[in-house]
Amino acid sequence: MIAVDWGTSSFRAYLLGESGTVMERRAAPLGISAVPPGEFAATLRAQIGDWVEAGAAPVVMSGMIGSRQGWHEVPYAACPAGVDEIARGMVQVPLGDGRLAWIAPGLCCRDAVGTPDVMRGEEVQLLGVLETLGAGTHTVCLPGTHSKWARVDSGRIVSFATHMTGEVYGVLREHSILKRLMQEGPHQSDWFDEGVRRARDSGGLLHHVFGVRSRGLFEEIPAAGLSSYLSGILIGHELKSAVEMDSVVYVLGALELSELYARALDASGRKAILLDPDAVARGLFRLGSTVEHL
Amino acid sequence: MIAVDWGTSSFRAYLLGESGTVMERRAAPLGISAVPPGEFAATLRAQIGDWVEAGAAPVVMSGMIGSRQGWHEVPYAACPAGVDEIARGMVQVPLGDGRLAWIAPGLCCRDAVGTPDVMRGEEVQLLGVLETLGAGTHTVCLPGTHSKWARVDSGRIVSFATHMTGEVYGVLREHSILKRLMQEGPHQSDWFDEGVRRARDSGGLLHHVFGVRSRGLFEEIPAAGLSSYLSGILIGHELKSAVEMDSVVYVLGALELSELYARALDASGRKAILLDPDAVARGLFRLGSTVEHL
Repeated sequence: MIAVDWGTSSFRAYLLGESGTVMERRAAPLGISAVPPGEFAATLRAQIGDWVEAGAAPVVMSGMIGSRQGWHEVPYAACPAGVDEIARGMVQVPLGDGRLAWIAPGLCCRDAVGTPDVMRGEEVQLLGVLETLGAGTHTVCLPGTHSKWARVDSGRIVSFATHMTGEVYGVLREHSILKRLMQEGPHQSDWFDEGVRRARDSGGLLHHVFGVRSRGLFEEIPAAGLSSYLSGILIGHELKSAVEMDSVVYVLGALELSELYARALDASGRKAILLDPDAVARGLFRLGSTVEHL
Repeated sequence: MIAVDWGTSSFRAYLLGESGTVMERRAAPLGISAVPPGEFAATLRAQIGDWVEAGAAPVVMSGMIGSRQGWHEVPYAACPAGVDEIARGMVQVPLGDGRLAWIAPGLCCRDAVGTPDVMRGEEVQLLGVLETLGAGTHTVCLPGTHSKWARVDSGRIVSFATHMTGEVYGVLREHSILKRLMQEGPHQSDWFDEGVRRARDSGGLLHHVFGVRSRGLFEEIPAAGLSSYLSGILIGHELKSAVEMDSVVYVLGALELSELYARALDASGRKAILLDPDAVARGLFRLGSTVEHL
């Protein structure tokens, strides 16, 4: 089986064995924003055509490849959803030579007041860890540009909420007045922690982020520590707002960012358990396994 | 007397009569970011040299002209401060022909946990309305790129807090994924109100702003209403966080923006009273009047 995690800025492919073991993996900076319309099949064949020729099947894909800007827009499945509901939403696209590939749907949900939320790709990562988490209700955080906080219950995704934390960090750092005082450099944990603490004060996020400037102006925080302080403020506010948080939070994402979240969770008295970031391969394997029985 | 409000992006000058009446006013897109270093005196003379030649004096300036990027960096005065404390912090700069002009200091304060905050220019606007507000404690909101919420008491500025609302709105609208779904157009009050309401829900700002995307994707909010909805969410969060807010809030700023704040305050059960946005001329007149007695 071939599993493909195809997002906005990156392409990751896994050749999977019969039980879902990763036999080989490939990655390229060929996110959907780097692929011209109509070139998705050719791009995919250029990356993993040899696996297909060697007989690996099916090809199952997830992520922004199923969005309006991707290969084919696949309608969102709705919460609550487990592997069966999500598999039912998959659509086929032509790979060439009469072969087909599958694209998984995204997932949508509505909160208590009816406001919708969406994810594309993270739902498959979640499918990849649901077996490990087992019965009962759990909270899973997927940190990133658009962090997702999901509630899962006995193998199904019940609800989730997106926080624009990573993107707000990026635009404030690159495009706001805060940039002027900042100096690039390695992450500074002490200033990150200080930001997490600051998020617990009254005053609100819009006030706290201005403090990056005022504390920089007064040289209370060195220029090289300001971006870590900003990161701590934003992640701290995200944690403060994530509702219905259990005392244990599973964190699923890139290692460096997951460790920041674990640190911030720890500071707020919660236990973080980091999950395998390759979960997407497992999730796609589970989806692909249902396809073979269709 | 000549009063000059010289900010980052605009230059405004007022020729004042003996009692502070505005006799004439001039404005130019010559904010300090548009003036090359060393050209401040020449720029000022080009704008109001005729007033100076005609004998108007003193020239008193406020705003970013007193910042590190301005003509001369003037150290911040500290809260609590009234007209005397701020006047004592003014410095003189050479205008040419042996003449001098005054630049007002900015103002700084520290919150309950010691975090500093700063303003440059707004403190003079506040001086301009303090006489009108009279005795007792009042809350004054100065909406803008960096909104200021000030507590004033019997003629002095006691404390204040900055919220980066306007700038966060700008960077999200111009540089984030939210831009993709937005369509330019006139402000839409209904969607603004909906955003203000949304800010009162749980979930936090970082989650609510992502809703601009999900509700746009689901076409629950038209493309031309999304920026108004975003504006309502951010201003709603600012109001929610502004601590120690009285039931009456004085709003001092550009008319259009002040009316948005009044609308959002009204929706949260508070009474907004709009103040004259020309307050800066009055504040500079008060500072200039102390100079004549030095």
